[in-house]
Amino acid sequence: MRTQIAIIGGGPSGLLLSQLLHRSGISSVVLERKTRKYVQGRIRAGVLETGMVDLLRTAGVAKRMDAEGFIHDHTKIAYGNEVFEIDLKRLTGTPVMVYGQTEVTRDLYDARDSMGGDIRFNVENVVIHGADGDAPFVTYDANGTAHRIECDYIAGCDGFHGVSRQTIPRAMRKEYEKVYPFGWLGILSETPPVDDELIYANSERGFALCSMRNANLSRYYIQCSLSDKPEDWTDAAFWAELKRRIPQETAEALITGPAIEKSIAPLRSFVTEPMRWGRLFLCGDAAHIVPPTGAKGLNTAASDIHYLFDGLRDFYRDGSCEGLDAYSQKALARVWKAERFSWWMSNLLHRFPDQSDFDLKMQQAEIAFLRDNENAQRVMAENYVGLPY
Amino acid sequence: MRTQIAIIGGGPSGLLLSQLLHRSGISSVVLERKTRKYVQGRIRAGVLETGMVDLLRTAGVAKRMDAEGFIHDHTKIAYGNEVFEIDLKRLTGTPVMVYGQTEVTRDLYDARDSMGGDIRFNVENVVIHGADGDAPFVTYDANGTAHRIECDYIAGCDGFHGVSRQTIPRAMRKEYEKVYPFGWLGILSETPPVDDELIYANSERGFALCSMRNANLSRYYIQCSLSDKPEDWTDAAFWAELKRRIPQETAEALITGPAIEKSIAPLRSFVTEPMRWGRLFLCGDAAHIVPPTGAKGLNTAASDIHYLFDGLRDFYRDGSCEGLDAYSQKALARVWKAERFSWWMSNLLHRFPDQSDFDLKMQQAEIAFLRDNENAQRVMAENYVGLPY
Repeated sequence: MRTQIAIIGGGPSGLLLSQLLHRSGISSVVLERKTRKYVQGRIRAGVLETGMVDLLRTAGVAKRMDAEGFIHDHTKIAYGNEVFEIDLKRLTGTPVMVYGQTEVTRDLYDARDSMGGDIRFNVENVVIHGADGDAPFVTYDANGTAHRIECDYIAGCDGFHGVSRQTIPRAMRKEYEKVYPFGWLGILSETPPVDDELIYANSERGFALCSMRNANLSRYYIQCSLSDKPEDWTDAAFWAELKRRIPQETAEALITGPAIEKSIAPLRSFVTEPMRWGRLFLCGDAAHIVPPTGAKGLNTAASDIHYLFDGLRDFYRDGSCEGLDAYSQKALARVWKAERFSWWMSNLLHRFPDQSDFDLKMQQAEIAFLRDNENAQRVMAENYVGLPY
Repeated sequence: MRTQIAIIGGGPSGLLLSQLLHRSGISSVVLERKTRKYVQGRIRAGVLETGMVDLLRTAGVAKRMDAEGFIHDHTKIAYGNEVFEIDLKRLTGTPVMVYGQTEVTRDLYDARDSMGGDIRFNVENVVIHGADGDAPFVTYDANGTAHRIECDYIAGCDGFHGVSRQTIPRAMRKEYEKVYPFGWLGILSETPPVDDELIYANSERGFALCSMRNANLSRYYIQCSLSDKPEDWTDAAFWAELKRRIPQETAEALITGPAIEKSIAPLRSFVTEPMRWGRLFLCGDAAHIVPPTGAKGLNTAASDIHYLFDGLRDFYRDGSCEGLDAYSQKALARVWKAERFSWWMSNLLHRFPDQSDFDLKMQQAEIAFLRDNENAQRVMAENYVGLPY
């Protein structure tokens, strides 16, 4: 069979691209290695930048988000027992939207379903062929049968472990990576959030984050050792440790309950350059990973999709390759800014095993400067709500 | 003999304090281990914050500075061949003053001389006694004779290697330190400065700084190995290396000449806490060192002197100990901000031997963000012109 765009990966990036393309009359097929249930069940970040919120509206998938999402005008930083607020709305003119990635994915599936989108699950042995030529195609197996899709372009939206990036010859790409010496242990619990806003906490016992999905669904994280396993942490142990890391007043207000999900995520900064090879375009986690501090992962994937969609739309409308030719450079310029911010925020809030007393003082001084200096807050807020596309 | 304030160290901090005290009718004796010629010959930074400029005016030693100093409204950052400007004046409302530490010291000596200030050079074996009691005194030897000065308070302005800090028992102080894995090779040359403004340059061969003292006296620095010796570097080798590290256009405009001074300084961040022990107050380099990037050394010493002078003046005028009791906390709050800024600027502009490709990309991204974001520039400018006392 033939389609215009073969999209590898049925997560939010691939679905959003497919949805945007469909609305511009461009055909696509989405290939997903896992089941739909698996993709929908993946718990990820829940803070959406204004740019992404606008893109979801452009894609026509914002109705439920606009009805059920939570507008956050502020975010909070805690250091020991002290808390201060970053007034995002006042400092930048725009808030952020709290709406889980799970919900975004569900809305995208619903939209694709209602428009008859072609999404194929459980595909195996995906191989991208001829991306450096004029007649690329993708082969895969499903239910024991071999398939082949011919296409004009391929969008690699299949994440860090996907085949898309690996398809680019090693000599043609340069990879940058930093692995942080800790992880995040996260739980989801059906309890009311401890605060109306997110609280990012630096404590002497390590980082903690109080986050939420809705009025009765909370998401909490604590920095943990890379050798920890989720099963090492009982619910009671998690709550006790969280309470030690957040301001006392917050700890006293915390309502605990059973964890309905518990997992550990490593923290990694990663970028591959370039993000295009011939007719293959990498998007989102396939090209770059940020540590979760600051919630830039999904948002940066969305900005890739924005640039790629623009390029594809212009190509099919006007025959212009300008947008596609500029894709890698444009996407990477914004990616590196998000990488810088996530790295800065991770450095600011975590305790590092090799941190000297001086390093710790620099961290304290940076937090104190942020607390006291409105321009420093404005710089953080601009990054947090999302730099312009 | 007896004086009100014994000041250990005859560099700019000790002299400025003695001058301010004198004008408030408070007596002091300054003890200096070296000769006057040695102190006056020490070449240090030459960028004065507004707060320090004001303090020199308050001290009545600003006449020559106001006539001969250079007002700089901007400073420049270079990365490879690209240069951009930080508009200090527009961003903060205030410029900086370029006027060498050597000149400040000379003006202070002249002022002390004209007022009959008591400064004793070539003193040996200075010992501070009874700082933790009610009757402190200082002993020293000069010309083979033992001397003793009784006093109310002691100001330790004798630098990193002085006796003042060492007088505080080890168990009573906490020291924080970071040693950077490189030095600065600096030369002074009687040539016109290559630019009207300072240029801080990050290049793939390491940091360089184009600075100046006046219209025919230039100061240039390049990052060098800690194992280098000044005599390893001929003038020709220095100029050739400098030219490789600054934008091509700047290199082409550079006028070179013989170095009239050539030296290597290590880069260190250091703070001791607290800055007071009983009747002994530490000021400037005796309590803290910054790497020279951003020129905060002398300026931070001046802010210590401001706080200490305020405390002493209030004590002798009103009998109030409030200012003196708050000295350590107030001085340190500002010190840590200057430490943070100097550390940040050093990290931004130098090449580090253990820097990964990712680290280098973060440095590039931070410079690009600074170039493109006015609020980031404002944060830098506020720190560069000096945070409020």
